[in-house]
Amino acid sequence: MNTPAFHGSPRFPIGFRCASTRCGIKKRGRDLSLFVSDEPCAAAAVFTRNRLPGAPIIVGRELMQGGSLQAVVVNSRVSNVGTGTEGIARARRMGAAAARELGIPEPLVLMSSTGVIGVPLPIEKIEAGLRGLSDELQNDPVVGAEGIMTTDTHPKAVSVAIPTSDGEATLTAVGKGSGMIAPNMATMLVYLFTDARLDAPTLDRSLRHVVDRTFNMLSVDGDTSTSDTCVIMANGHAGPVDEADFREALGAVAERMTELLARDGEGANRLLRITVTGAADEKEARIVARSLVNSPLMKTMVNGGDPNVGRILMAVGKCVDCRVESERLSARIGETGVATNGVVTSFEDPVVRASLLEDPVDIFVDLGVGPGESRAWGCDLSLGYIQENAAYYST
Amino acid sequence: MNTPAFHGSPRFPIGFRCASTRCGIKKRGRDLSLFVSDEPCAAAAVFTRNRLPGAPIIVGRELMQGGSLQAVVVNSRVSNVGTGTEGIARARRMGAAAARELGIPEPLVLMSSTGVIGVPLPIEKIEAGLRGLSDELQNDPVVGAEGIMTTDTHPKAVSVAIPTSDGEATLTAVGKGSGMIAPNMATMLVYLFTDARLDAPTLDRSLRHVVDRTFNMLSVDGDTSTSDTCVIMANGHAGPVDEADFREALGAVAERMTELLARDGEGANRLLRITVTGAADEKEARIVARSLVNSPLMKTMVNGGDPNVGRILMAVGKCVDCRVESERLSARIGETGVATNGVVTSFEDPVVRASLLEDPVDIFVDLGVGPGESRAWGCDLSLGYIQENAAYYST
Repeated sequence: MNTPAFHGSPRFPIGFRCASTRCGIKKRGRDLSLFVSDEPCAAAAVFTRNRLPGAPIIVGRELMQGGSLQAVVVNSRVSNVGTGTEGIARARRMGAAAARELGIPEPLVLMSSTGVIGVPLPIEKIEAGLRGLSDELQNDPVVGAEGIMTTDTHPKAVSVAIPTSDGEATLTAVGKGSGMIAPNMATMLVYLFTDARLDAPTLDRSLRHVVDRTFNMLSVDGDTSTSDTCVIMANGHAGPVDEADFREALGAVAERMTELLARDGEGANRLLRITVTGAADEKEARIVARSLVNSPLMKTMVNGGDPNVGRILMAVGKCVDCRVESERLSARIGETGVATNGVVTSFEDPVVRASLLEDPVDIFVDLGVGPGESRAWGCDLSLGYIQENAAYYST
Repeated sequence: MNTPAFHGSPRFPIGFRCASTRCGIKKRGRDLSLFVSDEPCAAAAVFTRNRLPGAPIIVGRELMQGGSLQAVVVNSRVSNVGTGTEGIARARRMGAAAARELGIPEPLVLMSSTGVIGVPLPIEKIEAGLRGLSDELQNDPVVGAEGIMTTDTHPKAVSVAIPTSDGEATLTAVGKGSGMIAPNMATMLVYLFTDARLDAPTLDRSLRHVVDRTFNMLSVDGDTSTSDTCVIMANGHAGPVDEADFREALGAVAERMTELLARDGEGANRLLRITVTGAADEKEARIVARSLVNSPLMKTMVNGGDPNVGRILMAVGKCVDCRVESERLSARIGETGVATNGVVTSFEDPVVRASLLEDPVDIFVDLGVGPGESRAWGCDLSLGYIQENAAYYST
């Protein structure tokens, strides 16, 4: 994908603002964010395909039927998943409290929750936290990004320009990731805002196209969250844009956010980028790219800068239903070839060792059997991942 | 499965012997083993479904066409994978050297190699190591188990009795595992020896039935080795056995070996056993059980004894193509219920915390939608796994 003009510091499109606060769910830091447009927006969303989704996903799917949103309210630390009918009721109360604070209709407010599964949502804290929060709305998307962090080490927001007939529109993404990241037809939490004028069906079409090639090709640990949500809201203030321009901008923003999320995966030191070419078709390229990016043995190799490059063959070959012909396979790490015609050609190469310690680590695999291409994003698997996740609930 | 009479110390069936030696491929310890029967055996084998299998697998598939074997020669540390036509030639040389040493026909010798992928097989060291090794053949299967270890922390051999009309036959398994363990239609390296009289088709049928329910439901890290091999040899010395008795014994031995391999997974502290009931069918039960046993977030929960039990819902729900109905799902850890009707009912329970630190950790999930059942075996994911695999090649 091309790289349109990213803003040096992320900014909001015209008419969008946000606020965040500490309502007391997390032990420290902000844990509640509010994103709002000054007018109702055309909107589209994709949610997790996990079969046991959280209450906000169940309610959110209903809300998105309308194709319109004006605000999103998000808390971190408790995900409101595995909480039954009471969880649904609390999700609705969360949306209602935000609507009341903003003076807008309830059906225009989407709620999200992220964090531990199976713990009741502290709805009173959220309701109290929302009171007066509309007075703190401001133009910096990073403020909203701070309130939705769980194990993320930094807030994540990016924005980009989209040309219009007489100027430019803005597209802004705010997201969080870190662990339980292997989105499936949806993503972690990513909120996209634009002042371009686009209708809900166009947003939906573009969102699905782009998500499938970016967030859905991201894996930190192969675990698919029960709370994945990706929403886009367009308020139209900057006027119409060309759909192709919009999709290009959306693709660039989604790819940049995907890389931010991968690089900040739980415990991660480095972004791992896998590019597969020459697969039988795009579907098989995706399967192989995902297999490589998910393999614990690939991920530990990258973690240690240990040039155990034969593991590339293992992770390709375990895609047992894909067309893989040993004699046609080649691979390189960065600029250095490590396998040709299915034979490993590099061992103990100091250049390969160095490439594995760079950021990003770029691994290219060509299957040599067809036109299919795909890219997947992930990170190394580190001691830090284990430490965070062996005590996430207890700390 | 039932538990037939295991021998306190593993022993060989009548007519089987083994030897192991250090030929100098590993930095320390024995790295070459020879298993032999005094007569040709009916034999069957299953190999990895990885699409880029090692040279010994390619040659082994050919050899097994004959349905007959008399010996197996195995080296550790270098797997002879990703080595092209030269690798094939060296695999054949390895089998030929063992046949020469034993004075038996080459087609009756199966060769296996396990270890790093993509490194040329040090065939001269193996040929030298085999010379004179037939003088050291002995009756203790543990001796052979020692020579095939890679990152295993202890040699693995078990044996069990099978009733015959006038006494008993013996079934013995020798195996190694540790990492890159998510067998697919085959297993890591496991060699099974029996003096029961069974023909090759019966062995093949029983082996596939049992492997599918034991070794194929084992996962240390979700990575499928390029060298997985499971072979059974029957020399007939103890006479005929009932096929049902044999299959029961084979199932028990395979299950015991599966648990040994899981518990000794790279870096592992504990065996994790997942039992899924009430799935739509056995196929879906297997998918869900595997999802649970493979999930890094389940495995780190077990590692830390951190009762983050909502992760069970996540790992079930991410099986997006299975029938999962939130209201019907229940789960327990050991004897303690942790979810009912899809709602998490246990948090901060000290009993659950204690159960997660026991060995084995038993997790039961009932989907409540059908008759499908399955069990999967794995282990916790620890700092040790990362440490071993971030530097496996370099150390």
